[in-house]
Amino acid sequence: MFAAAELGHVLDKEQYKIAADQLRQQLLTIQYQLKDRADFPVVILLGGVPTAGRGQVANLLLEWMDPRLIATHAFSAPNDEERARPPYWRYWRVLPPKGKMAILFGGWYSGPMWDQLTSQPDSVQYEHELGKIIRLETMLADEGALVLKFWLHLPKEQLKKRLKKYANDPLTSWRFDETDLWFLDHYDEVMASQQDLLQRTNLADAPWRVIESSDERYRDIAVGTHILEAITHHMERTSVRQKRVNAAPLMPSIDGVRLLDRLPLDADLSKESYNEQLEELQGRLNGLTRHPDFKKYSVVCVFEGMDAAGKGGAIRRITAALDARQYRTIPIAAPTEEERAQPYLWRFWRHIPPHGQITLFDRSWYGRVLVERVEDFASRADWMRAYGEINDFEAQISLANVIVVKFWLAISSEEQLRRFKEREEIEYKRFKITDEDWRNREKWDAYIEAGSDLIERTSTAIAPWHMVGANNKYYARLEVLRHLCERIEAALGPQKAGKKRKAT
Amino acid sequence: MFAAAELGHVLDKEQYKIAADQLRQQLLTIQYQLKDRADFPVVILLGGVPTAGRGQVANLLLEWMDPRLIATHAFSAPNDEERARPPYWRYWRVLPPKGKMAILFGGWYSGPMWDQLTSQPDSVQYEHELGKIIRLETMLADEGALVLKFWLHLPKEQLKKRLKKYANDPLTSWRFDETDLWFLDHYDEVMASQQDLLQRTNLADAPWRVIESSDERYRDIAVGTHILEAITHHMERTSVRQKRVNAAPLMPSIDGVRLLDRLPLDADLSKESYNEQLEELQGRLNGLTRHPDFKKYSVVCVFEGMDAAGKGGAIRRITAALDARQYRTIPIAAPTEEERAQPYLWRFWRHIPPHGQITLFDRSWYGRVLVERVEDFASRADWMRAYGEINDFEAQISLANVIVVKFWLAISSEEQLRRFKEREEIEYKRFKITDEDWRNREKWDAYIEAGSDLIERTSTAIAPWHMVGANNKYYARLEVLRHLCERIEAALGPQKAGKKRKAT
Repeated sequence: MFAAAELGHVLDKEQYKIAADQLRQQLLTIQYQLKDRADFPVVILLGGVPTAGRGQVANLLLEWMDPRLIATHAFSAPNDEERARPPYWRYWRVLPPKGKMAILFGGWYSGPMWDQLTSQPDSVQYEHELGKIIRLETMLADEGALVLKFWLHLPKEQLKKRLKKYANDPLTSWRFDETDLWFLDHYDEVMASQQDLLQRTNLADAPWRVIESSDERYRDIAVGTHILEAITHHMERTSVRQKRVNAAPLMPSIDGVRLLDRLPLDADLSKESYNEQLEELQGRLNGLTRHPDFKKYSVVCVFEGMDAAGKGGAIRRITAALDARQYRTIPIAAPTEEERAQPYLWRFWRHIPPHGQITLFDRSWYGRVLVERVEDFASRADWMRAYGEINDFEAQISLANVIVVKFWLAISSEEQLRRFKEREEIEYKRFKITDEDWRNREKWDAYIEAGSDLIERTSTAIAPWHMVGANNKYYARLEVLRHLCERIEAALGPQKAGKKRKAT
Repeated sequence: MFAAAELGHVLDKEQYKIAADQLRQQLLTIQYQLKDRADFPVVILLGGVPTAGRGQVANLLLEWMDPRLIATHAFSAPNDEERARPPYWRYWRVLPPKGKMAILFGGWYSGPMWDQLTSQPDSVQYEHELGKIIRLETMLADEGALVLKFWLHLPKEQLKKRLKKYANDPLTSWRFDETDLWFLDHYDEVMASQQDLLQRTNLADAPWRVIESSDERYRDIAVGTHILEAITHHMERTSVRQKRVNAAPLMPSIDGVRLLDRLPLDADLSKESYNEQLEELQGRLNGLTRHPDFKKYSVVCVFEGMDAAGKGGAIRRITAALDARQYRTIPIAAPTEEERAQPYLWRFWRHIPPHGQITLFDRSWYGRVLVERVEDFASRADWMRAYGEINDFEAQISLANVIVVKFWLAISSEEQLRRFKEREEIEYKRFKITDEDWRNREKWDAYIEAGSDLIERTSTAIAPWHMVGANNKYYARLEVLRHLCERIEAALGPQKAGKKRKAT
């Protein structure tokens, strides 16, 4: 991919002036259009050979355009906050909202590029990182983002010349360091592996632009022109954006029997027995969260199910066992304005707890394939692709020691009716019931269908669904606590789990 | 994915009879429609739990339909022919032509499923195999094939019951073996890893159907119904098939300068010096192909370039150095009828040489992105995705010790004109020039464009393009021989290469 960027492209001063004057005018105009439409963000990734001018290009873009609408981000070694969370958390943090732009130096490519050079070229880690990149960029594109990736290229001889020049001039010697010299020494291998990385991430919706950067004028006009053209093109495109369903179709069962239809909902449990076991389980949970090894893990707990299935009650029986500084409960309702300007998973990524902490989601990202599906808030193409995106999201955080525990609390239609009526009749429960609950109830069957599908598609080895029959709320609460303890024990290791079990 | 296939789906005898009578009639009808249209093949993959009835389902389908239009294939340990070639060669061999169906037991899933169980779950090999599967199935779908994947499922208890029953009856004890018992013993792990495999290969264009198989009647009707519906749906779909370009766009250079415009074409070399070096290089090549280690490798040599660039001449200078039993030259012209009924890479897969052999392609799979692009024989969507497919194809065969050597022989437009005229004037060269050559010449510029793009996109570390300025045909032939020797030497290892070089 680099041969075409070693042909000696050059612009003279006169050509440059004419092109630049026109270009900055056009870029400014389109930037304001983007702000006014506010229907997609622009993510610009800048990579390249040292001294090829990544910094200069970024500065120029900030000079040519309104810098209030562009953020720039560089990524060096992760800080404490970042280290305590899954690796991609720091990229999710800096995604620009719709209508704005961000320039990321290297971005999610920095890691794999250097890893690949310093470790085995076809290691598990490299394959894994590539997969993550491809899925992230595909998701961003599917969510409407414009992802622009530039590699500023210099032939080996050029790099050598520049480093020599910089080194000999005290005014410019700050411009390079040991890494640059290392790069020069390993130029051929770096380029071979970089080519592989670029070719394999040269996606239809997020292609690489390799820019010859020996001539600064050519480089600047080339980058600016590509940005202008891409945004113009994307504006025309998003308005008629094709919503092709790009996921395996759902398979309705031949005889109409669905997963949630067959779940046993009733259980026999007295209040006395409940109280006794509750205390025991809460003690067990508390002990687990105070275990020294728990500091290496975090827990994300998801509660889904029909209205009035007892999600809130179950959550409160968990939090009662925890130190208040250790957990947060996130009730999921309509997204905020800031959340609406981002890919839908962004609002959940921002709540991923650091190690040692627990986050309880009262409803969750499954809203995409549940309420948004049933109520037609998302297109079929959007919620269909969400199954894969959700599995990927959960796998990614699990790999970073986040224990993902998912509960589906299931009640019968009759039990829901009973609880609704009770809520209406008992004064202190009236806030819990709204007209919307009654409207949702009319779509009971569609929710069972959507629930069965989502459990089927998103029960993975690493983040399985635990279905709990919840007509008896005592039983359901104990079952939730017990399963949560078991999952944490499994993560902490069999020995510890064994010890704990005996102790309680 | 298996929970929904453990719900206890059942059909009674009466229901079955009615459904089966109708279904077999419909399947037969659609099978003949498929044959008449002959516009796509149907590939049915059958996997599942032992004793779930893969064989019975296949037999039933052959009974219900016209068996002359369905082939069945099982894959056990590879035979000699298969072992000497890349692993997927045996699957390419059995792809059904358009209008026909094939049932593959396990197919390309057999390997990774067992590997995953017996080795590390996230090994490089597993990731790699998954990628291969996904790219193969995506390619098949893009080429119009209907890929149907069935997993016949049984809950653990059912499997246990059946194995017990079979074991106790001498009439059925042949039905199972040690592997089945092993499967039962490891049921939970097998299912966990199988679920991961199914979820990750549950593609939009090649989804899995998990079929509950405890009840044979339900199983048979379910499989048959899915096949019928899928073919019906695919027939409606292919006629209006969307040709969305699903590849990174080509980036025209800002100043219009292209790769092949800048290649030096002329070289200075006398006939005497040529003859001398030719002999030396041919001897070197011959020595390499007789090296004991060469038996572990094969060579695929690709020649592309403008008409009259000297491809044939260069090939003959290679073959002159080889044992006639060791090589084949494949001139690529219009595809045969059989080839037209297959995905376009099929005609090249069939010529992949076994280890120890050399195949020389006079023109190649690059026709897709060259003549088919320029002449509009393929849609833009089709030739655009070909870049990725070709890189994948070459990577795959390279990994199986096929040395891929690609030459672009480049001449100037003036030189071509001189050669064309010479061909017309010299009687024994007249067969070499046709009206088509003159017509192609008019599209010189479009071919330069397409050639530059393809070199840019398909020069990979594992299968790089070697561009050769060929206005001086002596120089070009030597350069081809030299590069071929170097690539083989590099594959055989540095020591051998070093020794060889000194010896000649």
